Amino acid sequence: MNPADVLFFEDFAVGQSFELGTHAVTKDEIIDFAKKWDPQPFHLDDAAGEESPFGGLIASGWHTVSALMSLCAGLLNRSAGMGSPGVDEVRWWQPVRPGDALTGRTTVLEVKASQSKADRGTVLLLSELFNQDGKRVLSMKGAAFFARRR
Amino acid sequence: MNPADVLFFEDFAVGQSFELGTHAVTKDEIIDFAKKWDPQPFHLDDAAGEESPFGGLIASGWHTVSALMSLCAGLLNRSAGMGSPGVDEVRWWQPVRPGDALTGRTTVLEVKASQSKADRGTVLLLSELFNQDGKRVLSMKGAAFFARRR
Repeated sequence: MNPADVLFFEDFAVGQSFELGTHAVTKDEIIDFAKKWDPQPFHLDDAAGEESPFGGLIASGWHTVSALMSLCAGLLNRSAGMGSPGVDEVRWWQPVRPGDALTGRTTVLEVKASQSKADRGTVLLLSELFNQDGKRVLSMKGAAFFARRR
Repeated sequence: MNPADVLFFEDFAVGQSFELGTHAVTKDEIIDFAKKWDPQPFHLDDAAGEESPFGGLIASGWHTVSALMSLCAGLLNRSAGMGSPGVDEVRWWQPVRPGDALTGRTTVLEVKASQSKADRGTVLLLSELFNQDGKRVLSMKGAAFFARRR
């Protein structure tokens, strides 16, 4: 990548937002994720989903978060990202079902130069996923460290 | 399962904690998870990890959360769980590296009967993972709905 195209801490500004693209969720993907990481019956099996409060098979919330993360890869991999200390306010607003198409967006809420480490700053991002009906299915606020331009 | 063994909302009490078992993290698992869900260089490749601020290959934070979730399955699948509205204060305290053995514990912080839905209540849980050196690598506070005994 041309170094001039890399996003550093100084390139983020409050209010800026990035469209992240769309991830299509399949039934196989829902079941594969759940088998490995979140084997609750309503994530594994149509019949168990129908008997559950959700009325059908739904994706693990962590599968949905992972889908959002995968959509962030394009942005992160053209940034001077240095990891994240954590996230807050992870909210699952709607169930995610087989066939859903999830579109991501991330918005800059806050930028803060580090007081202790001169080489980096923290960017607070609100990241969201919307389904094909425009309903928000996931939101979370996550801090990420980015290197400063030298 | 014997219905008498199922954990309902009324079976959770503040201060109670549950040992969740141990998940061994392999290099293959780190790379497989990252390829699919979080393809940042320091999650994919030893050399890129060594050049990063982490000094080596580290697991995606979402891989670590998923490992915790997989350890919760035993507890959830003997409970009358009805999903979760969200989590807060997800914190990655230490990098997770190939060969780490992560042991989970969850502690009840709060129990609250639903005001609007008589069939359920909310349990607020602090869930944590510790590595083989006893260092905490992950913590998060998550609310979960559980059905009430009828």
